[in-house]
Amino acid sequence: MSTIGKTITCKAAVAWEAGKDLSIETVEVAPPRAHEVRVKVVYTGVCHTDAYTLSGADAEGVFPVIFGHEGAGIVESVGEGVTNVKIGDQVVLLYTPECKECKFCKSGKTNLCGKIRATQGKGLMPDGTSRFTCKGKPLFHYMGCSSFAQYTVVADISIVAVDKTAPMDRTCLLGCGITTGYGAAVNTAHIEKGDNVAVFGVGCIGLSVIQGAVEKKAGKIIAIDINDKKEEWAKKFGATQFINPTKLPAGTTIVDKLIEETDGGCDFTFDCTGNVGVMRNALEACHKGWGESIVIGVAAAGKEISTRPFQLVTGRVWKGCAFGGIKGRTQLPGLVDDYMAGKIKVDDFITHRHPLEKINEAFHDMHTGDCIRAVVTMSE
Amino acid sequence: MSTIGKTITCKAAVAWEAGKDLSIETVEVAPPRAHEVRVKVVYTGVCHTDAYTLSGADAEGVFPVIFGHEGAGIVESVGEGVTNVKIGDQVVLLYTPECKECKFCKSGKTNLCGKIRATQGKGLMPDGTSRFTCKGKPLFHYMGCSSFAQYTVVADISIVAVDKTAPMDRTCLLGCGITTGYGAAVNTAHIEKGDNVAVFGVGCIGLSVIQGAVEKKAGKIIAIDINDKKEEWAKKFGATQFINPTKLPAGTTIVDKLIEETDGGCDFTFDCTGNVGVMRNALEACHKGWGESIVIGVAAAGKEISTRPFQLVTGRVWKGCAFGGIKGRTQLPGLVDDYMAGKIKVDDFITHRHPLEKINEAFHDMHTGDCIRAVVTMSE
Repeated sequence: MSTIGKTITCKAAVAWEAGKDLSIETVEVAPPRAHEVRVKVVYTGVCHTDAYTLSGADAEGVFPVIFGHEGAGIVESVGEGVTNVKIGDQVVLLYTPECKECKFCKSGKTNLCGKIRATQGKGLMPDGTSRFTCKGKPLFHYMGCSSFAQYTVVADISIVAVDKTAPMDRTCLLGCGITTGYGAAVNTAHIEKGDNVAVFGVGCIGLSVIQGAVEKKAGKIIAIDINDKKEEWAKKFGATQFINPTKLPAGTTIVDKLIEETDGGCDFTFDCTGNVGVMRNALEACHKGWGESIVIGVAAAGKEISTRPFQLVTGRVWKGCAFGGIKGRTQLPGLVDDYMAGKIKVDDFITHRHPLEKINEAFHDMHTGDCIRAVVTMSE
Repeated sequence: MSTIGKTITCKAAVAWEAGKDLSIETVEVAPPRAHEVRVKVVYTGVCHTDAYTLSGADAEGVFPVIFGHEGAGIVESVGEGVTNVKIGDQVVLLYTPECKECKFCKSGKTNLCGKIRATQGKGLMPDGTSRFTCKGKPLFHYMGCSSFAQYTVVADISIVAVDKTAPMDRTCLLGCGITTGYGAAVNTAHIEKGDNVAVFGVGCIGLSVIQGAVEKKAGKIIAIDINDKKEEWAKKFGATQFINPTKLPAGTTIVDKLIEETDGGCDFTFDCTGNVGVMRNALEACHKGWGESIVIGVAAAGKEISTRPFQLVTGRVWKGCAFGGIKGRTQLPGLVDDYMAGKIKVDDFITHRHPLEKINEAFHDMHTGDCIRAVVTMSE
């Protein structure tokens, strides 16, 4: 019996309040309205941003909510006016939408899209309402995705169809972590052959930056992490060196060390930690005259970066990007194709797997230091 | 009788100690050594950086010293191995040298030159000594120029010959202020036709930025200064609007106002104040996704810039430049030619003139709010 046009009842991991474990609940998912798409979520990754908002530290966080923004699945039904995907398409959810019509999309200068930013930031669909209810209460959406539900509704600009033969437990990771790091390296930074690169933080994003730097034929690719276990990971992905900054000789800072290793500083540095002190080090480890530091990590609410302006006057550049500067609808299908063609590593990132019922373990995995990415099976 | 190879005795404005007026003294200027040039300084501008170091706030400041870095004059003699200028050449001194040989010069990415940075920063010639003495004591050089002496000695990489017919009371100003602002606009920023630009601080540098923005056919060119007298100046140079941020309605910040005026933020902003609070406003007034803020002003020692990293993650770029990113030996002669061809305004900047004996008045002029640039006649 077709579910089209009807409310679907399914399982979802609901965050009732900040700081508590998610609760597996039966939720109702309303049909998609105009320019919306209902998706059967098959796999989702679990990202630090989910954990950050769950912790309560995110000033924009609203509860109760269904988290998850690294999702892949199959289009179950489409609302009126949807032309970019059709029932049965295999899709990746896009927390950075692409409307192709707004000032941002048409600028040719950014992948940020302004069209539904206001409602997305409030946890609502573009018409200002929610499609989720649980025990009679509406639940908020999250980052325009809410992939921790077996069925979710997203705006049509927040979704892209990809190669049907690509395994969805892999493509889901291209919906955030891998693309965020890889795009920062190959898209936002203009790494030239032989450039020296430093990557602060060796998680899913940092490894993806390393992967991108290798593709751009960078010279030294120096991975930095306070966890020695990350050395093996970094080198597996192509880092030429690993530095644990807590183990430098007394009096030697990581900035000193990087400047020494690179004859004056790095051509590009990437912060993949969200720690504002690390962001400063990343900037100051750049080469005078041209080094660029790219902030990728999301800092805790209220935290600020700082440096002496002389760092900029003498030619260093401080910038950042979201989702690697990648336009989801335009560029993500190509990344999936690159994965299928063996040009981009994805499989190697998956260290943990859980069924939906054990999704809280994926959050716990993150703090063990052994986890790169946990993938949760949403639907069999 | 030729002075070549001999010590020259002449007048100079000596700064014996921080915070005190300069003292007009008779000084001895030794002949140039290998790869050095002795110049008869004819005119010098007086810049806020001179005043800053004189104030004692510059951590690198050393005394006693001969300040001045915006100088034009005539080559009196050259040391062994000098090939880029010859006796009689009309020259502009370059506080940003260009050796054309170091990693920086050869990078194609910056105008900073590393060759004599260490000694220049210490107030010494490249061989670690001084060419100035007064009352038996050596005096320090300043920014590789020391244009407040009637004769000075500079490294050959710190000097460039320009059109002999160009008036030196104008070309001296291309040695710092005008080029610093103009270069930031036409060289460091990539302003496109119609781009909205905000310029914080309407002095010599700010007006030069405005001039560059006009040349690049910017759309709105919004000048910002806390001194209402600067409105007329800004508009004379091509600003389309002037805002005094102290006169905005209560609750409206300059950032709010600029975002409103530009439908989301400026494409480029320039700090020409050296105030770190202004630098932050300049960044945050940039358009999300692509706006770039360029720090030109020199901040007081120990001051730091800060912002939320979200400003960068959402696509704003924080950068800076020194001497407008202009390579002195390669590009300055062309700027002088542009001035002679009527393409760059220089005459309009000169609001005050003084003989060497009254150079202290030029420092006082700066604080009146009426002064754009004071030019001091060093030699008749």
